Amino acid sequence: MILSKVEKANIEPRITLIGAGPGDPDLFSLKGVKALKTADVVLYDANVNEALLAHAADDIPKVYVGKRTDDEDFSQEAVNKLIIDYALNYGHVVRLKSGDPFFFAKGYEEIDAAESYSIPTEIIPGISSATGAPSLQKIPMIYKDLSESFWAVTGTNSKGEISDDLYIAAKTRATIVVLNGIARVKEIAEIFQSENKGLLPVAVIQNGSTPEEKIAVGTVDTIAEVVEDKNIKAPALLVFGDVVSLHPKFQPIKDFYEVIANEY
Amino acid sequence: MILSKVEKANIEPRITLIGAGPGDPDLFSLKGVKALKTADVVLYDANVNEALLAHAADDIPKVYVGKRTDDEDFSQEAVNKLIIDYALNYGHVVRLKSGDPFFFAKGYEEIDAAESYSIPTEIIPGISSATGAPSLQKIPMIYKDLSESFWAVTGTNSKGEISDDLYIAAKTRATIVVLNGIARVKEIAEIFQSENKGLLPVAVIQNGSTPEEKIAVGTVDTIAEVVEDKNIKAPALLVFGDVVSLHPKFQPIKDFYEVIANEY
Repeated sequence: MILSKVEKANIEPRITLIGAGPGDPDLFSLKGVKALKTADVVLYDANVNEALLAHAADDIPKVYVGKRTDDEDFSQEAVNKLIIDYALNYGHVVRLKSGDPFFFAKGYEEIDAAESYSIPTEIIPGISSATGAPSLQKIPMIYKDLSESFWAVTGTNSKGEISDDLYIAAKTRATIVVLNGIARVKEIAEIFQSENKGLLPVAVIQNGSTPEEKIAVGTVDTIAEVVEDKNIKAPALLVFGDVVSLHPKFQPIKDFYEVIANEY
Repeated sequence: MILSKVEKANIEPRITLIGAGPGDPDLFSLKGVKALKTADVVLYDANVNEALLAHAADDIPKVYVGKRTDDEDFSQEAVNKLIIDYALNYGHVVRLKSGDPFFFAKGYEEIDAAESYSIPTEIIPGISSATGAPSLQKIPMIYKDLSESFWAVTGTNSKGEISDDLYIAAKTRATIVVLNGIARVKEIAEIFQSENKGLLPVAVIQNGSTPEEKIAVGTVDTIAEVVEDKNIKAPALLVFGDVVSLHPKFQPIKDFYEVIANEY
């Protein structure tokens, strides 16, 4: 196996962390395609579309390191170690993470670990579902008098709690996108209710950009019921804000409240 | 010119609004490339990399409709009309907007106008510089105890004022990205100063993802001076938050304050 040893001697470990986008394999950058073509091994998460693996050479290992449930098949620490191990043994590791690697996807943890081993790293940003999924549904984040800012909050923080930031967000006129919050939609809606925002429009988008995409709209007061009725499951995000009123599905709700307002 | 008339009769007007990304022509989606290949005309903004036009056929019109200054070569209303006019006369209009069309780029105004003429529209999201430029600099938006959310605010709203949202944002622990705010960095820093956040880390990134990219870091107290010293100009964004302390350029600043703290 002399050949194998010679190859080993030439290994130049490096890691490219790529945003795989919200799900549609065409919502992936040309830069990401180029990086995959030079990969010696690919590590990918749950929610990464496996169609993307076809951009890499057929004969290289493609390793699934995702966590599908809260049980976590792979802890973050285990993934960090795997990435480093593959880089030292294979060379160019391409790490595919869903959405954008530095937005919600814990990319920093991975490059920080790699750099502690002096392994060079590069980031290729991706389209986050936080902005991409509402865009595809023609819900703008910022629009005229309706919203001047966009606030993306994790529904469940690293301690498993609802983020304190959400209590402040609910007081503002920002468009608020909540990721990882669908299982706690009732509690989250209550935060807005305690700010007297029961009639604020809300959209929920499941599997944005994929053939399984589902959207439902309601108000703060109704959204928990809507999520249950329409059987919306993770991965899904919530959009709170007046910009949701621009969505065609919100029109009948608007009409309903106008009728009520005129009757009383 | 019978042929021309026959062609005219077959025109199917439609509009695809595409996020052209932060500047690097490789930070552009495969879906965007496919749409450009079927374009009958392309309309593009300032800050859109003209290299992207090469994905469209050579013999179709490529029309610049950007605004380079506050004087606005083209008003939004004029652009809306142009898009509709081109769709009715040419067919498939591909509209390239920098970043993501529904984040900060006023995409909704354009599709709303088109839909009032019953012209079908489609959105292809892009990588916003708001998240993409910090990602490329390895500054995460959300990281462990440092930040649980990300708030993107326009520095200057449609009335030319600093957004009210920024006054609330400055009170929170969110990572705050300010777009279109570089010319008013001093006023914006003062908002954070009045919340006693003079030592909060701040990064400023100009022309993110392009060969002209520049980054500088400082604190709320020093950032206006840093912007002047380093001659940072628009297009540039500001990142306020503890996550900026992870950037290598912040290390000497951290060391300096530690020395000061130990001396007194």
